[in-house]
Amino acid sequence: MNKRKIINDPVYGFITISSDLLFDLVEHPYFQRLRRIKQLGLADLVYPGALHTRFHHALGAMHLMGQALRTLQEKGHLIWEPEMEAAQAAILLHDLGHGPFSHVLEKELMPGVAHESITLEMMKQLNREMDGRLDIAIQMFEGVYPRKFFHQMISSQLDMDRMDYLNRDSFYTGVIEGSIGADRLIKMFEISQDQLVIEEKGLLSIENFLHARRLMYWQVYLHKTLLSAQAMLTQILKRARELSAAGENLFSTPDFSLFLKNKFSLSDFEQNPDLLESFNNLDDNDVWASVKGWTKHTDLVLSTLCKDLLDRHLFKISFFDTIPGEEILNPLKEKLLSEGIKQSELSYFLVTGETTNWAYEKEQDPIKVKMKDGALLDIADASDIPTIEALTKIVRKYYVCWGKNVSLRG
Amino acid sequence: MNKRKIINDPVYGFITISSDLLFDLVEHPYFQRLRRIKQLGLADLVYPGALHTRFHHALGAMHLMGQALRTLQEKGHLIWEPEMEAAQAAILLHDLGHGPFSHVLEKELMPGVAHESITLEMMKQLNREMDGRLDIAIQMFEGVYPRKFFHQMISSQLDMDRMDYLNRDSFYTGVIEGSIGADRLIKMFEISQDQLVIEEKGLLSIENFLHARRLMYWQVYLHKTLLSAQAMLTQILKRARELSAAGENLFSTPDFSLFLKNKFSLSDFEQNPDLLESFNNLDDNDVWASVKGWTKHTDLVLSTLCKDLLDRHLFKISFFDTIPGEEILNPLKEKLLSEGIKQSELSYFLVTGETTNWAYEKEQDPIKVKMKDGALLDIADASDIPTIEALTKIVRKYYVCWGKNVSLRG
Amino acid sequence: MNKRKIINDPVYGFITISSDLLFDLVEHPYFQRLRRIKQLGLADLVYPGALHTRFHHALGAMHLMGQALRTLQEKGHLIWEPEMEAAQAAILLHDLGHGPFSHVLEKELMPGVAHESITLEMMKQLNREMDGRLDIAIQMFEGVYPRKFFHQMISSQLDMDRMDYLNRDSFYTGVIEGSIGADRLIKMFEISQDQLVIEEKGLLSIENFLHARRLMYWQVYLHKTLLSAQAMLTQILKRARELSAAGENLFSTPDFSLFLKNKFSLSDFEQNPDLLESFNNLDDNDVWASVKGWTKHTDLVLSTLCKDLLDRHLFKISFFDTIPGEEILNPLKEKLLSEGIKQSELSYFLVTGETTNWAYEKEQDPIKVKMKDGALLDIADASDIPTIEALTKIVRKYYVCWGKNVSLRG
Amino acid sequence: MNKRKIINDPVYGFITISSDLLFDLVEHPYFQRLRRIKQLGLADLVYPGALHTRFHHALGAMHLMGQALRTLQEKGHLIWEPEMEAAQAAILLHDLGHGPFSHVLEKELMPGVAHESITLEMMKQLNREMDGRLDIAIQMFEGVYPRKFFHQMISSQLDMDRMDYLNRDSFYTGVIEGSIGADRLIKMFEISQDQLVIEEKGLLSIENFLHARRLMYWQVYLHKTLLSAQAMLTQILKRARELSAAGENLFSTPDFSLFLKNKFSLSDFEQNPDLLESFNNLDDNDVWASVKGWTKHTDLVLSTLCKDLLDRHLFKISFFDTIPGEEILNPLKEKLLSEGIKQSELSYFLVTGETTNWAYEKEQDPIKVKMKDGALLDIADASDIPTIEALTKIVRKYYVCWGKNVSLRG
Repeated sequence: MNKRKIINDPVYGFITISSDLLFDLVEHPYFQRLRRIKQLGLADLVYPGALHTRFHHALGAMHLMGQALRTLQEKGHLIWEPEMEAAQAAILLHDLGHGPFSHVLEKELMPGVAHESITLEMMKQLNREMDGRLDIAIQMFEGVYPRKFFHQMISSQLDMDRMDYLNRDSFYTGVIEGSIGADRLIKMFEISQDQLVIEEKGLLSIENFLHARRLMYWQVYLHKTLLSAQAMLTQILKRARELSAAGENLFSTPDFSLFLKNKFSLSDFEQNPDLLESFNNLDDNDVWASVKGWTKHTDLVLSTLCKDLLDRHLFKISFFDTIPGEEILNPLKEKLLSEGIKQSELSYFLVTGETTNWAYEKEQDPIKVKMKDGALLDIADASDIPTIEALTKIVRKYYVCWGKNVSLRG
Repeated sequence: MNKRKIINDPVYGFITISSDLLFDLVEHPYFQRLRRIKQLGLADLVYPGALHTRFHHALGAMHLMGQALRTLQEKGHLIWEPEMEAAQAAILLHDLGHGPFSHVLEKELMPGVAHESITLEMMKQLNREMDGRLDIAIQMFEGVYPRKFFHQMISSQLDMDRMDYLNRDSFYTGVIEGSIGADRLIKMFEISQDQLVIEEKGLLSIENFLHARRLMYWQVYLHKTLLSAQAMLTQILKRARELSAAGENLFSTPDFSLFLKNKFSLSDFEQNPDLLESFNNLDDNDVWASVKGWTKHTDLVLSTLCKDLLDRHLFKISFFDTIPGEEILNPLKEKLLSEGIKQSELSYFLVTGETTNWAYEKEQDPIKVKMKDGALLDIADASDIPTIEALTKIVRKYYVCWGKNVSLRG
Repeated sequence: MNKRKIINDPVYGFITISSDLLFDLVEHPYFQRLRRIKQLGLADLVYPGALHTRFHHALGAMHLMGQALRTLQEKGHLIWEPEMEAAQAAILLHDLGHGPFSHVLEKELMPGVAHESITLEMMKQLNREMDGRLDIAIQMFEGVYPRKFFHQMISSQLDMDRMDYLNRDSFYTGVIEGSIGADRLIKMFEISQDQLVIEEKGLLSIENFLHARRLMYWQVYLHKTLLSAQAMLTQILKRARELSAAGENLFSTPDFSLFLKNKFSLSDFEQNPDLLESFNNLDDNDVWASVKGWTKHTDLVLSTLCKDLLDRHLFKISFFDTIPGEEILNPLKEKLLSEGIKQSELSYFLVTGETTNWAYEKEQDPIKVKMKDGALLDIADASDIPTIEALTKIVRKYYVCWGKNVSLRG
Repeated sequence: MNKRKIINDPVYGFITISSDLLFDLVEHPYFQRLRRIKQLGLADLVYPGALHTRFHHALGAMHLMGQALRTLQEKGHLIWEPEMEAAQAAILLHDLGHGPFSHVLEKELMPGVAHESITLEMMKQLNREMDGRLDIAIQMFEGVYPRKFFHQMISSQLDMDRMDYLNRDSFYTGVIEGSIGADRLIKMFEISQDQLVIEEKGLLSIENFLHARRLMYWQVYLHKTLLSAQAMLTQILKRARELSAAGENLFSTPDFSLFLKNKFSLSDFEQNPDLLESFNNLDDNDVWASVKGWTKHTDLVLSTLCKDLLDRHLFKISFFDTIPGEEILNPLKEKLLSEGIKQSELSYFLVTGETTNWAYEKEQDPIKVKMKDGALLDIADASDIPTIEALTKIVRKYYVCWGKNVSLRG
């Protein structure tokens, strides 16, 4: 094997690409594109270090997959080399279908098209180019491979995806309380009844993992300032689409223009291979270059929002326990109207939303603990105090964002 | 003071913005732009974690400045609060004048205009907007403030700039051998005869610092693959300028177009305030969006180089101890010609250059050590072995980069 | 000030001794003794890195005290330099009264004498030697200083003692999930109504702190193997005392002999200054040297226990939710008797005990959060989910330890 | 395999004991003794965190050996499992023969008996107990195993011993500039002509390694204060031996008494198995307990030195470039005499010595670099600047230590 490669990683020290197939996947333009898509979108407006990309995350998840499978081998489970490689390939590619500013843009640009579906289309395309070398990886990804635990390592509450992203997001944001000790957790993995489970002695580590996850949600993923910036970017895209639909000529890279002007469905992707290529040309730079270009647009709503986002003059934001009613919204509307915003433009400067934090999803996909006597218990039952139970509660919050001291730039 | 703010930093834990002035500077669009300029340009093509920005670096340098000055205060040196704030402001702003992909673009877009000069223009503009609150900071930056050691803390071989960037670049690349222990070095700072010097007991730390610096040069700043990617980006810009000059219409953000079409001198900046604003609109996204847009350009040289850079199909590169002659270059030229590249296009695919590594510049700006008897010695004289002497040698290398398996994309 | 000193600390980087008084305290034999008392007693039998001493912990707590008070100053609270120094002195000295293997030995050697009382005696003795320079520190330690929050920083659920020990124990054991981010917590400190409280935005950090604390208890402080080793050491001391009382001559350092032969009360310490000096001569080496010396003693119970502890042949241990009854204990007794242990010696090889884990003591000393509107809430009320409530439950476990394959060494 | 065990290590995260043999070795009293021998002797008097033991170091070196051998396997070198286990066993046991305060005590107690010889005796004894399971390990340790590179991994300038100790000592002292990035170095290992060599791309890492080594010598191993404390302990032992020889009864553990009263040669160990057991009963606690016991001895020289060492009232020390002559020593002698020390006792309070720092031993055991063309070069020749050459210089310093303000405690 002549393509072995070592990549520096501040989080794990080194990541080794351990096979030719994995090397070829990393080299492919589909995967190289992930270099230009930040893992956390706009979060660097809050945490300036949070600039890491889906490229690095995917490599990290592949690394952890290798570690985890070797741990299982050492515990006596038979895992074939082709399975090892396929599982690493699957987790390496699991994020291919993410566009820039993933959830923000998905909602506006391709509503109804889940990124997992795009990932699958891209994996299939790669598999065609590679003469079927990804057959097993795709089976694992889709959950149809006979040994089910592989799919759980790719997608479940204990998957390598969140092992890496929680670890990595904690590292790059500097929110060290969110650190999960992925290497320790992985040492506690076991297979029982073809399921990925945790050894009893890893119970405290899992509690810590769920706790850290909850903390990262509030501290990072649902940080007020981030929600506010996301609301602004969403409004920008909404306005741009509307102007575009109205025949306005908007500065943009060619492929981004295509997506601004259309709403594609999954079947469009399945039927049109070129569309996948166009999608693959999208990255963070298209969005930022457009936002920058639009700061000089004659539409004052668009240019104002763009300039404010660039200069980090963000919307104000408040959280509420219940849906905010007229008594909250009306004063804000009046304020905005008094600042010269038209009634028809109000919705661009006053945005409501809701957000949920659900640290442990007990019903759908419980985490199982293998007790010393061999029994499998749900962690909520294995734990000695009601902490886990507490983490299964969905916490829902409502928010209102609004422009402060907006002055449309004429 | 109501603007005190704490920013998370994976490198130092927390960075505190300790005054209203510093807060206002951070909020200013000039400084916010640095969020969109990566410290190490294309280095993430080699070290995927190296995505940190000049924004974060400047905050880090400000943090170290605060630490260093407090250390000096504890050692009995009188430093007034306005001096403290001015020194922090100066180091915070010291990189304002950097464009995207700094040295790469400077060479092509604004030859002869040092980024320090642009920084100074921007500081003066800020000072006008802020009614002179930056007077002392600018004096320190220019080196005319009476207490000379402040300027040394902003620009010298021991300045807070390199303290932070060596530390930070080591951290984000994962090249931990380049770690310099900035906090320890700073504890060894002293003032003697109005100069920034090092206490004798810090001698080993300084040796380590210079050694780490040399290592970071070879391992990161002058990494072969990085030099190769930079050569490609330079050729892309060169080609784009030529096409632009020849009347070709090139996709680009408006401000980047302006710089592609012109070669501005420093006096242009001094005479035309709008030009500074245009410069301030440039960031990494303009370059990447253009490169992406140009992959579909009809000029095959341009589109090929752009596609190859995006997909990380980089030039091959070799180092030489002497200027490579015909015996090196001719076979490469023939190979390229045989692959269908025209004689007139050869220079875009075959690039030569030189690079130097100079860990310690003894003559111009020696680092002084304060011995226990009070004497000031150059570190090369204070050290017990010839290591330092060895580090004063300039190491010069020559390189050749060339496209491998180039096929112009028709 | 000519005694300023910097001490390397792997946990915080550097610890600065910032005043002459603090320097003199560190130099004093009372404080130097703490170099020879490990923070975690026998825990290195489980975590080989856990060798840190009360000396290093006390310095770390002093460091955090300095950081915390400076944070409070920056938030606008007036703290005088003498208060700063006194608070640092008090926390520096707070562990003086600990003997070796603190809780293990206290129980056997000086039942009824709290280590805090000995600390106070030693502080008073130091104060006499230092002409009253510790007056304020002692007031703060005793809780009689007018500004009550100082005492809370020395002794409460948010005190610098546990901030440092949780941090430090997590670091040296390598149980990184127990890491609490002490520096971040400290930035969230506030003073309200003369109480030490937490800013609302620190709520998640406090949750994390309590969670980490609970984890450290199960993972480290109450680790089965550690409890087992402690039970062995306790039995060793018990046997040694009994033999000693029976007139046996036991190898031991002179001062340790004194404590083996007597049971001193607090009033003994108050009345007899020499006793304090003898106490100050005790450290871990006395205990280990005795255990080593006793491996050759003719009493087989004593020598067997000592040899087994030294070679880490530890008791087996099991946890139970309720007090283990005859059905558990009788089979173990029979086994031991069958291995040649006499009825009268059974209690040395079969030990029962109980242990509790109480992450948050809500009633006695609630942690208060200062909400943005200024209100003070108990954290259990400020938190959005019942996690905190869950952590207020006392978890009690019972254990049985017994010798396995004991063969009395004849 | 049912003895697989994972040990927490703050340095590497986890250390896995990967075979039954290794587990049995770790469990053996010979190896458990290393828990009670600090790696750096008295260095915690300078760096309070430097309390790590030879036990932890040996486990760390075993861990690195496993990593290194797996790296070599991945590079295509055939390494059999029995070789893997033997190499790990050999490095695990390489320090068995160290006594407490190794070099200090060796000099006084067992002059002429190298600790490596004792290690070998103990390995042979273990091999007898284990029915020859250590045959290969002993061959590797002695350098007679046919594949020579295994011995180099156990003992050479690139061996796992110094990889771990430099890393670990840097970690626990907090001297982070001494950090060597052992994991990166190991990835650069290669085998060529049956020698352990470094790949060309590891050249900078090796330079860094040697530089770090030199720094650790000056900063830690030869730190003035440490040399001074060692001189005191040496004088204490010297005096104790003399008193003992003169018939004085000295408090001490039985086995330590044996060594105080005799000077054993290697042949004594070879002929007398009990002596090995007595040696194995020695650890740091014996020395400290004796020093503590002797603080009350009637011999004022002994008790003064002991009390001063315990309370960290250390000798003053000065370095000189040449052997210090009468002009240095006489004034010190006069001072001591004037303080009441007798002529015959002078040598206990005035000690001279020399120390050398030799970062790279070029002649005896050069480090070889495998260039890309396959050639093997000495690193001094492969490096582009004379740094390495500079590190081959032996730096020799002379020192004088003397008691300051000595007052014999009557």
